[in-house]
Amino acid sequence: MRNYKIAVIPGDGIGKEVVPVTMDVLNHAAECFQDAAFTFTEFPWGCDYYLEHGKMMDDDGIEQLEEFDAILLGAVGDPERVPDHISLWGLLIKIRRSMEQSLNIRPAKFFKGLASPLADPRDFDIMVVRENSEGEYSEAGGRIHRGQDELAIQNAVFTRKASERAIRYGYQLAGERKGKLTSATKSNGIVHSMPFWDEIFKEVSQEFPNVEATQQHIDALAAFMVSKPHEFDVIVASNLFGDILTDLGGAIMGSIGIAPAANLNTNGDHPSMFEPVHGSAPDIYGQGIANPLGQIWTAKMMLDHLGEFKMGESILDAIESTTAAGIKTQDIGGDSSTVEVAREVCDRIKF
Amino acid sequence: MRNYKIAVIPGDGIGKEVVPVTMDVLNHAAECFQDAAFTFTEFPWGCDYYLEHGKMMDDDGIEQLEEFDAILLGAVGDPERVPDHISLWGLLIKIRRSMEQSLNIRPAKFFKGLASPLADPRDFDIMVVRENSEGEYSEAGGRIHRGQDELAIQNAVFTRKASERAIRYGYQLAGERKGKLTSATKSNGIVHSMPFWDEIFKEVSQEFPNVEATQQHIDALAAFMVSKPHEFDVIVASNLFGDILTDLGGAIMGSIGIAPAANLNTNGDHPSMFEPVHGSAPDIYGQGIANPLGQIWTAKMMLDHLGEFKMGESILDAIESTTAAGIKTQDIGGDSSTVEVAREVCDRIKF
Ligand SMILES: CC(C)[C@H](C(=O)O)[C@@H](O)C(=O)O
Ligand SMILES: CC(C)[C@H](C(=O)O)[C@@H](O)C(=O)O
Repeated sequence: MRNYKIAVIPGDGIGKEVVPVTMDVLNHAAECFQDAAFTFTEFPWGCDYYLEHGKMMDDDGIEQLEEFDAILLGAVGDPERVPDHISLWGLLIKIRRSMEQSLNIRPAKFFKGLASPLADPRDFDIMVVRENSEGEYSEAGGRIHRGQDELAIQNAVFTRKASERAIRYGYQLAGERKGKLTSATKSNGIVHSMPFWDEIFKEVSQEFPNVEATQQHIDALAAFMVSKPHEFDVIVASNLFGDILTDLGGAIMGSIGIAPAANLNTNGDHPSMFEPVHGSAPDIYGQGIANPLGQIWTAKMMLDHLGEFKMGESILDAIESTTAAGIKTQDIGGDSSTVEVAREVCDRIKF
Repeated sequence: MRNYKIAVIPGDGIGKEVVPVTMDVLNHAAECFQDAAFTFTEFPWGCDYYLEHGKMMDDDGIEQLEEFDAILLGAVGDPERVPDHISLWGLLIKIRRSMEQSLNIRPAKFFKGLASPLADPRDFDIMVVRENSEGEYSEAGGRIHRGQDELAIQNAVFTRKASERAIRYGYQLAGERKGKLTSATKSNGIVHSMPFWDEIFKEVSQEFPNVEATQQHIDALAAFMVSKPHEFDVIVASNLFGDILTDLGGAIMGSIGIAPAANLNTNGDHPSMFEPVHGSAPDIYGQGIANPLGQIWTAKMMLDHLGEFKMGESILDAIESTTAAGIKTQDIGGDSSTVEVAREVCDRIKF
């Protein structure tokens, strides 16, 4: 019997609704398969915690997380009560960076039974590999002058190490899939960081002669996510471009509520973290209507990461068959509750 | 009789196909209305010119352009023959910046007869106001170290002056339209420039109590362009975010080939420039299949800018009735040629 220690951080808003039902799904899957079990340890970190303790997580929070096999995160943020730069940088981005979760992997996949806003959503199946540690999300920068002369400078920092890591992972993944890798760039307008990124993309291509490598400017690529998503296989992108493309991925699937993400530590020296692409949606929190599928799908990504591929597959199949059966939350055109959808997924897990 | 002096730069690729037919449309409209005329002066600048003369435009090119009432530009770029940083920064971006065309205005509008890739493209009518002079497209930055330690730094520069100008224009335009302004931000991840942008957005809102002002992170906003474009009126965005959102705008209209842009000099001290959102598409150049509607629509924007509103309106009506009649190029599902579509637009211009 394999036993996995999972750190659970429901976080804010609907994170507190979709995380508990996802633990149920995982427990249920474990019961079905009978060869693995999960020990969940919950951490109450988030905006409530901040308002009580003046910090988003314990001072030694990162150390506390080290001993786990993986981290399951709900959502972070409650901007009406706590500014984003405190909540996100004090918890979500802090964990991503402190634990060197340098890649963020996000699928966008056509689902039967999900009403895509696209008229002709031909079977698309995209994996976005997003650089997760630097790039446009850099703390370097600041302001100068006051009044009419005030200006802000924001430094995007692209290291060869981090760019190469993301790009190489993209090539590897493409090699294991359909063999097509697209790099998101904007080197025609952004003249220092993106040409550097393009150079590395080209260099690393030498190691993968069997992968068909193309680059697209982010503006065109965003448009293609809408006009011909079925033409893509793996897309590798910087932190910001990956962020935008994966929300678009959620949109063409039919709801951002269904899209999952894996924050991967590729060295294996810290745990990886699994979180949905959607945010905490404080506006719908507490009504029992949040779509749990994004979070449940993160559980499948977590299982893949732990090597429990069959269990992971069974969860994804159960998600697909649940949506195909029309058991859906409001955001995707159904009238089932968070709990009902999760229960249905449990019932459909097959050994 | 009002006479307008128009500088015409067909540029590269399909620019050389869609610009001539747009001059025909303008001449035809002038004949119909009989109270205005155009004198076109063509400039052969672009990648061919570069390969012959070693520069994208004449050394005194900017001065040559000063005397015109407006500039009609096709497309710039031919990356297989001339690197983008030479062609774009030597012509397109050079004109935008030297002539202080500090705003880039781009509509995205639901068109009857155009197959939007959206399943339910409810009447949307969006104007994107894009900051056009700085932001993420800054020449500041560079590289340091070699080998594995190499890194690139890209500075995004946001001045109060340019940000305020774009944001204030957005509020004004929203005030003249449906009264809704959405600001594209990403202050939860990009912590220097975007919070500064947000602050200015909030400050300027005081001057426009009747405009409903909202901000959305660019990732969510990109998704909403797909899931609920009809909810937007005016969107104000930084240089990069505006670039991405307007290509998405083209995509949801049914083709990037139809989207126009106005590069506005708001001080009135240099001419403004009108260009389609699409690029030079060297891959389809010379086949006579390029969609001329984006370029023709820029003529309507140019006419609005010159105060010839009725003539402009007649051109937009003619575009809509042409697409509604099914006279379309291949990219939007028809089989008409560039010239046929343009001729049909001419025939449909009504005084
Ligand atoms: C060609 C490129 C530099 C340009 C831009 O990003 O400004 C284009 O995409 C546009 O939108 O006009
Ligand atoms: C909340 C925000 C900082 C975050 C990001 O942009 O990384 C989110 O949008 C995501 O995609 O995980």
